[in-house]
Amino acid sequence: MSKSKINVGNFFEDFKIGQVIRHAAPRTVTVGEVALYTALYLPRFAVQSSTAFAQAIGYERAPIDDLLVFHLVLGKTVPDVSLNAIANLGYADFKFLIPVYPGDTLSATSEVIGLKENSNKETGVVYVRTTGANQRGETVLSYARWVMVKKRDRDAPVGPEIVPDLPKSVAPSELGKAAPPINVGAYDKALAGSRYIWGDYEQGEKIDHIDGMTVEEAEHQLATRLYQNNSKVHFNQYYEAQGRFGKRIIYGGHVISLARALSFNGLENVFHISAVNGGRHVNPLFAGGTVFAWSEVLEKAEIPGRQDIGALRLRLVATKDKPCADFPLHGAEGKPDPAVLLDLDYWGVLPR
Amino acid sequence: MSKSKINVGNFFEDFKIGQVIRHAAPRTVTVGEVALYTALYLPRFAVQSSTAFAQAIGYERAPIDDLLVFHLVLGKTVPDVSLNAIANLGYADFKFLIPVYPGDTLSATSEVIGLKENSNKETGVVYVRTTGANQRGETVLSYARWVMVKKRDRDAPVGPEIVPDLPKSVAPSELGKAAPPINVGAYDKALAGSRYIWGDYEQGEKIDHIDGMTVEEAEHQLATRLYQNNSKVHFNQYYEAQGRFGKRIIYGGHVISLARALSFNGLENVFHISAVNGGRHVNPLFAGGTVFAWSEVLEKAEIPGRQDIGALRLRLVATKDKPCADFPLHGAEGKPDPAVLLDLDYWGVLPR
Amino acid sequence: MSKSKINVGNFFEDFKIGQVIRHAAPRTVTVGEVALYTALYLPRFAVQSSTAFAQAIGYERAPIDDLLVFHLVLGKTVPDVSLNAIANLGYADFKFLIPVYPGDTLSATSEVIGLKENSNKETGVVYVRTTGANQRGETVLSYARWVMVKKRDRDAPVGPEIVPDLPKSVAPSELGKAAPPINVGAYDKALAGSRYIWGDYEQGEKIDHIDGMTVEEAEHQLATRLYQNNSKVHFNQYYEAQGRFGKRIIYGGHVISLARALSFNGLENVFHISAVNGGRHVNPLFAGGTVFAWSEVLEKAEIPGRQDIGALRLRLVATKDKPCADFPLHGAEGKPDPAVLLDLDYWGVLPR
Repeated sequence: MSKSKINVGNFFEDFKIGQVIRHAAPRTVTVGEVALYTALYLPRFAVQSSTAFAQAIGYERAPIDDLLVFHLVLGKTVPDVSLNAIANLGYADFKFLIPVYPGDTLSATSEVIGLKENSNKETGVVYVRTTGANQRGETVLSYARWVMVKKRDRDAPVGPEIVPDLPKSVAPSELGKAAPPINVGAYDKALAGSRYIWGDYEQGEKIDHIDGMTVEEAEHQLATRLYQNNSKVHFNQYYEAQGRFGKRIIYGGHVISLARALSFNGLENVFHISAVNGGRHVNPLFAGGTVFAWSEVLEKAEIPGRQDIGALRLRLVATKDKPCADFPLHGAEGKPDPAVLLDLDYWGVLPR
Repeated sequence: MSKSKINVGNFFEDFKIGQVIRHAAPRTVTVGEVALYTALYLPRFAVQSSTAFAQAIGYERAPIDDLLVFHLVLGKTVPDVSLNAIANLGYADFKFLIPVYPGDTLSATSEVIGLKENSNKETGVVYVRTTGANQRGETVLSYARWVMVKKRDRDAPVGPEIVPDLPKSVAPSELGKAAPPINVGAYDKALAGSRYIWGDYEQGEKIDHIDGMTVEEAEHQLATRLYQNNSKVHFNQYYEAQGRFGKRIIYGGHVISLARALSFNGLENVFHISAVNGGRHVNPLFAGGTVFAWSEVLEKAEIPGRQDIGALRLRLVATKDKPCADFPLHGAEGKPDPAVLLDLDYWGVLPR
Repeated sequence: MSKSKINVGNFFEDFKIGQVIRHAAPRTVTVGEVALYTALYLPRFAVQSSTAFAQAIGYERAPIDDLLVFHLVLGKTVPDVSLNAIANLGYADFKFLIPVYPGDTLSATSEVIGLKENSNKETGVVYVRTTGANQRGETVLSYARWVMVKKRDRDAPVGPEIVPDLPKSVAPSELGKAAPPINVGAYDKALAGSRYIWGDYEQGEKIDHIDGMTVEEAEHQLATRLYQNNSKVHFNQYYEAQGRFGKRIIYGGHVISLARALSFNGLENVFHISAVNGGRHVNPLFAGGTVFAWSEVLEKAEIPGRQDIGALRLRLVATKDKPCADFPLHGAEGKPDPAVLLDLDYWGVLPR
């Protein structure tokens, strides 16, 4: 009886194709979350930092940072989707669709869109399509994600393998949905911190963001709790001391936010992440590590129907304890550089 | 002259029966405090997490977490009541009476209701009745608390011993005052995270909340400062290095909030603490410790006049570095288990 | 190409007399920042803590803490002024001019008012006049600051030496601009925490604030990021491990805020810092240190035209791991006591 009311998370064999999960704990996002997010990462993008700046260019007020929206939505899915996950494998078709403002309430729903048992029969890959909605029921964020989840029982029967067909990248025509029409004339580049806009970047250009940020245990714990992400590995040193690494693993999203904030130096006007094409957490990060980052312009795209903003497809790479002047990515023999933490492929938008 | 304007706190012989102390530093509680509270403990109760959820069931908006209200009120009393306390002995007749919302300003008053010198003449027990009020002067919280306080002067004369007659528990008829009439039909159990409501719990039922949370120095210091609780032992490593434990002692209320947040897993719909019958901080916690928790349903009660909500009298036990699958409480020879930090007896309310 | 878009900061030879720099990242200050500020320092001044208290005496609502305004304004200047600074030399003519309220957006501008190359030709002193403005363009804060900045190229030619003539102190007639007319009758001294007002302090009086606060890495990093101050030395253990001290240096402003919060005990009614006459960061602080503080009343002044408030010119001294019962300041042979971190000279205002 003692555990009957306890959520121990779903195991691979608990998921069914087409199953829709309404996740618990809707969350009202406020200026309180915004201030903490600033204190955790040091973002300086003017649109999110200043209501006056945001309103001047066309927002209702300063929107919630895209990644904060993502973390809050993902956090809700953890108890149902990834409490028994052993690896966070990937993201695809990840789009921000409507701006989120302080006072909005976010909730999340996931549909199981793919299931594939691994040959060891001890784990399987679960693919979900997660949507985050606001209090009016409008979808603010939609993404596909796949994670490797343990089976409760090696011998449990599972259904046929279904692997969803996911796009390699989000098409430019789908970008910019969460950016209102921007009054480019009112966009003050000096206040934003750089004179470089869309036309100033070139495909193939690489940028070393030069700064580094050391992460403390208290910081990543505060962040991950702020997102109501209750994944055990981030918080419980008693168990992790006996685990794979002997220490708490930092939530991968924490690294994304650190790298994004570091990328301000060189990408000051990329004020909005419109879509994520894909991403991998290449290595885990632990407290005490210092995160560095670099970016590469993979592609430049016009957004159909938008003269105000253009899109840059950017690779954002984060490393641990390794400055990025030589843009580390691959190590010896084609293996990833062991210092690489994150390899993210996203569409950022900036004024034209 | 140098110390004449300094508050060094009251000593046992400074308290008089019937003395009323208006505590300093009224405090406006905002969504800023709410966000930090979430980041410190990972609470996920839907009523406090979501304005949309709270309004749907009958609140004006998402109320401030009961324990945050408690910590803020208690924090104000510290400079006057417990700056020279050496032990926090107990609570009784502890009731939440009105919801607190962001924007409300809390202030606190204490009346001395009992005094009892210890036989060693070096300390005595001070009993106070503390009330927290909002900016309209309405009492939002009322509790009796007793602490062991040092005497300044062993030979100082003291008055006759007066020990107040405090109830062992709060009567069901006094519960639910701070919960508005709940529209149970609008209470979305999936969003709240569990299908189990009042009728599903049984007296004697025990729940292991399974998760654990490791506490860092920065975290408990941030929390305790957030509550404007200036008790020296939590912040000053220079002095504590020479003290009883050689390290800073974590505010006992931090453990209560951690245990309450952990108890979400199994008590998801117990959205409100209505009263505390009693509680003991059995052992101190230090940074680096991992807190686990379990609960027992001590009693089930209907609340007279309320068809919307029912009450569960719950024992909430927190431990340090000890998972709670076997519900640790007593150790060898009837002594408390040395891993037990907290033994709290409270009334929670949940939908019927 | 890789670094062409990167801000590596200005070097001494990049500054020109009369140059005006509009700093990036305007910032909307909210109750989120206020809550974090409380959690970082434990301030208890009633005016900033309580909207009800502030409104009763004449403010629109609880104003943003003066030092939080200062940190936010200074943070903006770092990327342009002090990214290549090796010492923060001083402040002068530092005045708060208008109250800042939650919701206001702060931006900052600096004018270069002095330049003086050092004889080693490797560094020089840059003097700037920085003003912080709100969203209506009103100046909320103005100060002169000088820092020692590296030269990029030892042989770069520099202009003639210009050292601005800065006042040794702010005149009483310039004080109180950011304090509205105070309804002294409504100022509740019990709620504020002390019965001592302007008339109760005497020139030469020294106050040991008795309490101490130990600083953790996570805390000063959260604070400094909250201020969007991206000075490298505070965050990057990878580099600092190889640096002068082998560890991260705590932002000097963190010490000012800690000392100011500690000074509540003894200066409870000094609710507002009106001006700073000068200040020196005497020694650096590192995580693990415990900060203590003491104050001396250097001068008492009436503020022309104000019967409601009076001014105290206060020396605020902070120390590391050294209680202040004997008011440490000078060490052996006229050198500063090596435990002294901060020696600040400011005008505080309080009710008459």
